[in-house]
Amino acid sequence: MSETCVLVLDAEPLPRLDRLAGRARVVHADEQTLAAQLPSADVLLVWDFLSDAVRRAWPGEGPRPRWVHTPSAGVDRLLPELADSPDTVITNARGVFDQPIAEYVLGLVLAMAKDFRGTWELQRQRRWRHRETFRVGGTRATVVGSGPIGREIGRALLALGVGVDLVGRTARDSDPEFGRVHTTEELPRLVAEADWVVCVAPLTAQSAGMFDAAMFARMKPEAHFINVGRGQHVVEDDLVDALLTHRIRGAALDVFAEEPLPAGSRLWDVPGLLISPHMCGDTVGWRDDLTEQFLDNFDRWEAGEPLHNVVDKQLGYVPASR
Amino acid sequence: MSETCVLVLDAEPLPRLDRLAGRARVVHADEQTLAAQLPSADVLLVWDFLSDAVRRAWPGEGPRPRWVHTPSAGVDRLLPELADSPDTVITNARGVFDQPIAEYVLGLVLAMAKDFRGTWELQRQRRWRHRETFRVGGTRATVVGSGPIGREIGRALLALGVGVDLVGRTARDSDPEFGRVHTTEELPRLVAEADWVVCVAPLTAQSAGMFDAAMFARMKPEAHFINVGRGQHVVEDDLVDALLTHRIRGAALDVFAEEPLPAGSRLWDVPGLLISPHMCGDTVGWRDDLTEQFLDNFDRWEAGEPLHNVVDKQLGYVPASR
Repeated sequence: MSETCVLVLDAEPLPRLDRLAGRARVVHADEQTLAAQLPSADVLLVWDFLSDAVRRAWPGEGPRPRWVHTPSAGVDRLLPELADSPDTVITNARGVFDQPIAEYVLGLVLAMAKDFRGTWELQRQRRWRHRETFRVGGTRATVVGSGPIGREIGRALLALGVGVDLVGRTARDSDPEFGRVHTTEELPRLVAEADWVVCVAPLTAQSAGMFDAAMFARMKPEAHFINVGRGQHVVEDDLVDALLTHRIRGAALDVFAEEPLPAGSRLWDVPGLLISPHMCGDTVGWRDDLTEQFLDNFDRWEAGEPLHNVVDKQLGYVPASR
Repeated sequence: MSETCVLVLDAEPLPRLDRLAGRARVVHADEQTLAAQLPSADVLLVWDFLSDAVRRAWPGEGPRPRWVHTPSAGVDRLLPELADSPDTVITNARGVFDQPIAEYVLGLVLAMAKDFRGTWELQRQRRWRHRETFRVGGTRATVVGSGPIGREIGRALLALGVGVDLVGRTARDSDPEFGRVHTTEELPRLVAEADWVVCVAPLTAQSAGMFDAAMFARMKPEAHFINVGRGQHVVEDDLVDALLTHRIRGAALDVFAEEPLPAGSRLWDVPGLLISPHMCGDTVGWRDDLTEQFLDNFDRWEAGEPLHNVVDKQLGYVPASR
């Protein structure tokens, strides 16, 4: 039996895969060499998970990896191309980002309620200007995305006394933590009552462009919008209009249709818009955690056991276990 | 029986005391007229609670108000002068600020862990620069002040998975939420293990200057310090040195020895220091909440019932009810 070939599509820094020594042949690929290397690989580790190279290089037929792992929560950069390969299993990093992203979103909510940016801008000007800020307890949030990250965000908000409406693909009536879980059909009604609208949904054909002029028009003028899902969930020009016309009070984007956000983008200085460079889940040690998660799954692969975090290629995410 | 005289020391905007119509004569004082008016007042409402005027104008003997209410948590601007008047009861705003200040402190913790200020400064420069940030869950906090605000801060941190050491005047071994409550004697040992040191103590002779060079020297280089107590808790020059020499990673001050912080203060642009203008508890509606709290206590006063939130003038705060 020939040795397993693990192909790693990577950007710096490389993952430390010492645990594979003697168990697999590890080969590195870049965006240029990937297409030529894919046919001889058993496993593809998409370390550079922001790249679109896999989708472009994926062999339509013939030999190809039977397992593709992406160390990200979203798999939108692999689909739909890989969905046509029934023998290839996709796994993702479900779990690793839950707590970091929940902390980041909670921090954004509090920072917006307390106007930290305004305060620090006044500090830069050496100006003492007392203002009243907003209480977060007693407000209401709609969290779009009912996977583990969305649930962790919901939990963090609940702990502060925020009422949480969780929106997922499947409605459920007696979720132990959130009561009713709503569907996206209910979203227009829910956002009309929300002080905070948080998007952490997986990007699918159904969810792309979900936050457009019509949706922003339904929100309250006091509402804030936060996107930590994918940039394509938002019609960015519509968000800019909603902010400039004070349809909503503020927004924070960690993800963008084009990343890195070009220096010339108009988004950088829209009043009331906070921009961060796709970093909400990336806490110190995250690369080690992601490597460890892949290696644990490799143990299962080698032993012929079912992999963890297998993505449903039609849904575009890992379905909740029952 | 003569009508009750309620004297209000106020800055703008005035409290709405309509509920007292027909029940009391409401007289306004400013810092200049206060001394002349105090002898004829039954009740003093220190609406301008940042003023030192009451302490200066307080009659050493003779007629004086039998009840002084300050719509703040701290009573340090009334003591020790009023402590010598055994017939005068002091009450405070215990309770109103608990949740707003806890939210503010939690927001600061998350903002510092995620480096929001750095991110928004990069946004101003239109620069996309991904960085790794810190996870808050699993860190450790020392909260100095075990009154209702300190406890609410502790609760908010616990909910995020932060280990909390609460420090109060009296040690207790089996607090239902925090386990052991420590005394300030244990503070040097506790801060050495803390990632977050939060000061929310009442200002007393014992607590003044508590955070000095020696205390900062005991903290970890990764530690952050937050003061929402009183400016006098901190030796400000020592904090500046600790930040400039990277003894600690960062700090946030909402209170200062001199308020408003003068435009010429060196504190404004110390790297790693976040400045806000004594506003951590002041959410929209706070003045109404404070007025309501005073009026509820006035009902009790009129009915001859014991007042709520009576300050122990020796301790300098409202002792916990048993």
